[in-house]
Amino acid sequence: MSAPAGEAPSSGYASIFVEEDLSTAEVDRLEAVHRPLADSVRELVDATIRTTVDDEEVAAVRAEVDALVARLRARQIEGAAGVRYNAEGRTWSWGNAVVGERNALAPPLDVVRDPDGLVHADTLLGAAYEGPPGMVHGGVGALLLDHVMGVTASARKRVTFTGTLTMRYVRSTPLGPVRLESRIDREEGRKVFVVATLADPDGVTVEAEGVFIVPRWAA
Amino acid sequence: MSAPAGEAPSSGYASIFVEEDLSTAEVDRLEAVHRPLADSVRELVDATIRTTVDDEEVAAVRAEVDALVARLRARQIEGAAGVRYNAEGRTWSWGNAVVGERNALAPPLDVVRDPDGLVHADTLLGAAYEGPPGMVHGGVGALLLDHVMGVTASARKRVTFTGTLTMRYVRSTPLGPVRLESRIDREEGRKVFVVATLADPDGVTVEAEGVFIVPRWAA
Repeated sequence: MSAPAGEAPSSGYASIFVEEDLSTAEVDRLEAVHRPLADSVRELVDATIRTTVDDEEVAAVRAEVDALVARLRARQIEGAAGVRYNAEGRTWSWGNAVVGERNALAPPLDVVRDPDGLVHADTLLGAAYEGPPGMVHGGVGALLLDHVMGVTASARKRVTFTGTLTMRYVRSTPLGPVRLESRIDREEGRKVFVVATLADPDGVTVEAEGVFIVPRWAA
Repeated sequence: MSAPAGEAPSSGYASIFVEEDLSTAEVDRLEAVHRPLADSVRELVDATIRTTVDDEEVAAVRAEVDALVARLRARQIEGAAGVRYNAEGRTWSWGNAVVGERNALAPPLDVVRDPDGLVHADTLLGAAYEGPPGMVHGGVGALLLDHVMGVTASARKRVTFTGTLTMRYVRSTPLGPVRLESRIDREEGRKVFVVATLADPDGVTVEAEGVFIVPRWAA
């Protein structure tokens, strides 16, 4: 599913999208405070995979991490971050697995929508996204493609759900810089057909097709 | 791609699979040291998304995280963890995005292979795997399915690459406990057809089909 951007969601979602009494300026300010923490934790994830320090140092660092977890959990929301919006129409999903500003698992992906309908995103995939030796995990390609295609289908103005998704793996994708490109191929009733690619600097590595559904209540 | 488990990879991979002069006992010991650090970092990822502590505390925790990153990076491997094996035929891929023992992004997934050919895995997906509000990101479902299906295709004895992967989203998957099930449907020459499902406690949420290819050099 893709949340509509720049517009409050329609009534069918009232129960799960949460309206917050926060100005857009305040949301931006909070993002500026929390994004750097997520960036640092992302570095920690990478360092945890790649470190070769002594066993004692690993254990000592672990104890410090546990102490930091306790400090952050001193006050926290129940459950996941959800998707929120305010009266100004700003939406935010800080915990999103692909683009969440506060999620260290997200690469993160900055998705850009060109006026001609092309949706694209560039990112750098490091040690935490590995599958085959030195290569991007095939499922990570699927994860990023699903997200960018969902954003494409939503076209900034509607909620869509993933119906089917098909990936053709042309060749392995080396870890490093990758680019995603996606566009709407055609629409039939409530079905939106999206085509997309994942590419490394040498060209396309994965081709994808997806059918996204506009729910009846939003059509 | 799926690395063969319990067997040294064939010659075509000699350049990217790395043989290490480590006994299996030593590999097990190192995993026991590093796994708890990854577990703690996984908690930190979750707490980073959910915390509501003051801005000053967020900044203070961030500074401490940066210091821990520096301690771990004091000595580290270049690049990603890769897939390694030893003379006893033990293989390990500590950085793998889905099952890496040292990767805090991995849920982690413990993949079990039954004698009758069913491959399954149970895991708990928390705040870091969110897409729609309170729901598993559709791409995370694809990530986990791709991995389990690749393990299924490899059948413990061969290298396979993902050819195509098709997912049908039956309904949204709530965050919480999920189960993956996968089995080989049929084989045709070097093509292995795998079928799989993702399910929540109420039943199947995503159905998947994949065609995995045994490379010519490994057939």
